[in-house]
Amino acid sequence: MTAPTAEGSLPAEFSFVGRHFRPLAGPGSLGLQDDAAVLAPPAGRELVLAADAMVESVHFLPDDPPDSIGRKLLRCNLSDLAAMGAVPLGYLLTVCRPAGLDDDWFAGFCRGLADDQRTFGLSLLGGDTTSTRGPLVLSLTIMGHVAPGCAITRAGARPGDGLWVTGTIGDGALGLRARLGDYADPSGFFTARYRVPTPRLGLDLAGVVSAAMDISDGLVQDTGHMARASAVAIEIEAARVPRSDPDPALLPLCLTGGDDYELLLAVPPQHTEALQARCAAVGVPLTRIGLCHAGAPAVRVLGDDGMPLTFTRTGWSHIDPEN
Amino acid sequence: MTAPTAEGSLPAEFSFVGRHFRPLAGPGSLGLQDDAAVLAPPAGRELVLAADAMVESVHFLPDDPPDSIGRKLLRCNLSDLAAMGAVPLGYLLTVCRPAGLDDDWFAGFCRGLADDQRTFGLSLLGGDTTSTRGPLVLSLTIMGHVAPGCAITRAGARPGDGLWVTGTIGDGALGLRARLGDYADPSGFFTARYRVPTPRLGLDLAGVVSAAMDISDGLVQDTGHMARASAVAIEIEAARVPRSDPDPALLPLCLTGGDDYELLLAVPPQHTEALQARCAAVGVPLTRIGLCHAGAPAVRVLGDDGMPLTFTRTGWSHIDPEN
Repeated sequence: MTAPTAEGSLPAEFSFVGRHFRPLAGPGSLGLQDDAAVLAPPAGRELVLAADAMVESVHFLPDDPPDSIGRKLLRCNLSDLAAMGAVPLGYLLTVCRPAGLDDDWFAGFCRGLADDQRTFGLSLLGGDTTSTRGPLVLSLTIMGHVAPGCAITRAGARPGDGLWVTGTIGDGALGLRARLGDYADPSGFFTARYRVPTPRLGLDLAGVVSAAMDISDGLVQDTGHMARASAVAIEIEAARVPRSDPDPALLPLCLTGGDDYELLLAVPPQHTEALQARCAAVGVPLTRIGLCHAGAPAVRVLGDDGMPLTFTRTGWSHIDPEN
Repeated sequence: MTAPTAEGSLPAEFSFVGRHFRPLAGPGSLGLQDDAAVLAPPAGRELVLAADAMVESVHFLPDDPPDSIGRKLLRCNLSDLAAMGAVPLGYLLTVCRPAGLDDDWFAGFCRGLADDQRTFGLSLLGGDTTSTRGPLVLSLTIMGHVAPGCAITRAGARPGDGLWVTGTIGDGALGLRARLGDYADPSGFFTARYRVPTPRLGLDLAGVVSAAMDISDGLVQDTGHMARASAVAIEIEAARVPRSDPDPALLPLCLTGGDDYELLLAVPPQHTEALQARCAAVGVPLTRIGLCHAGAPAVRVLGDDGMPLTFTRTGWSHIDPEN
C-alpha cells in the first residue's frame, strides 16, 4: 500500500490527484493542495448537505463506462439537492481505488464529472484518495444552498395534497434488468436511464409543494418514508404512474425497483397550477399519481379495480436484512 | 444485497441507521430522515471543509477496538480543521459495511464517535450506509468555520520563519509497529497514540503562524509539501525533533512513518513568544525543529554532524507507486 519515493519527489498519490482531480477543482479548493477547502457561504443563505457512497457491483456494474459512473455519483447527490429545493454549490469526493483501475479509467471517470460540473454549475472542493484491496468505493458529499427556511423536507405532506412525480418511473430498474440481460433494450434508452439519471434541479419548488423527496429506492418504499415523516396515509393509483414500458407484467418491478431519481411531491390543490407551470417552463414531465389522506401512516397502491395491490418487496435496502 | 421487506415495515438500512447513528445526529440533521441536512452557517464566518476515507487494513487494523476506529476517523479530520485554524461544526459519514460486522461492532464504533463529539463540540449532520463485499470503508466529511480570510494554509512560510511542531513525532509509527509485533510497548502508550491521535484544536493560530499543516504522512514528506506550497527551502535538525523513544535507530521511522496528527508550523521570529504562550495556555508541547530559507523548494534533514541525512522513503503514499 505504500510507495517508496525518492527524497524530494512527489509521492504517487499526489501526481495522481494532480493529473485527474485538480482540473475539476474550483474556487475554495486551494488547488486540492491543502488540508481543507475554504468557502465563503453565499450571504444570507442556508446550506444543504448530503452524502452518498457508491460501491462497485452494488450501485453500478464493473463494466459500466467510467464517465457514466462519475455522472451517476454526482447526479444521485444532485438529486438530493433537487428534492430539498437547493442550488448546487460544490462537492467533496473520496475514492478508494483497487489496483486494477488504471489511468484511462480515471480519465474517463473525471471526464464525466467535468461534463456534469459544467451542466449543473458546481465544482470539486476537496477529498481524499486511498487504495483498497476490495471493490471500488466512491463517496461524495454535496453542498447546496437555499433561502433561509425554504428547504423542503419529506415531512410536510397534508391530507388533501395531491401526490405527483416528475418524469417516468421504473426506467432505471428496467435499465438494470437490461444490463443483466433480462430485458430487451434495443435503443439503449433504459440502460442510459439506469446509468445516467436526471436530477430534477431548477424547479423552484419552495412555497408550492408541501413535501418532496427523490425516488431512489423504489416508489412504494420511498412513498412510505414520506407517509411516515408527514404522518399521512398515501394512496397511489397504479394506472396513473407514468412508465416508459406499459407492460402490465412489469408494474411491480417499476414501482419497487429503485434508481429512478425522479421527485416525489406532495402538492396542495391550490398550488397545482403553479407547479405545472414551473415544470412546463423547464420541460419536466409531471404526473399526479395519488392523494394524501388523514390516517395512520401507510401506503396503498390501488389496481385498476380499485383494490390494493401487494408487493413481495417495496424497494431496495442497501444492507442485509438481518440487521 | 437487497432485503425483501414486508410492505409497510422499515427496511433494514433504516432501522440500522436509527439504532446506531440517529443518537449522534445534531441540529440541522433533520433526524437523518430526509434527503439532506440543512445548516445555517455561522454569520460572518467562512467554512472549512475536508474529507478523509479510511479502509480496513490500510488505515486501521481489523482487530482495533471499534470505538478507537470511530475516534481516529473523526480525529484525523479534526486535525485537518486544526491545521487550518478552524472551529469544528459538524460532519457527514458514509459507511460501506461488510457482512461480518455486527451490531456490537457498530455500537462500539458509535460510542467512540459520541464521546469525541462531546469532547470536540460537533455532531453528525448526515450520511449514507451501504453494504460491500470488500473491507470496511469509512468516509467522513468535516465542516468547520473561521473568521473571513483567517484560514491558515501551507503556502505562507517565508525565509527566516522557524519550523515548529506540536507534541512528539513518530509515536504513531511506533504504535503501528507495536501493533504488528515489531516493537515492545508494555505501557500501551504508543499503541494508544496510533489508535487515537490528538487533534491540536484551539490554538488560535491565525496571525501568529505563517503556514500550518497537519503531519499525517510522515514529517519529512509533509515538510516537503509545505516547502513546495510556500516556495522555500526547509532545514530540519534531526536532533531537535521531539520523540517519545529517543533510540537513534528509530530516527528514520519516526521522521517518515506517518500517523502523527501533530501540527507543522512556520512561525516568523517576532511571533514565537505569542505562539509559545498560546500552546502553553492549553498544555500543548511545542518545539522548534528547523528553519525556512530562501531557495528552491526542498527539505534537508541534518544529522548531529550537520551533514544531510538520506532516507529510503520520506513518508506514506496511499496509492500504488506505478500510478
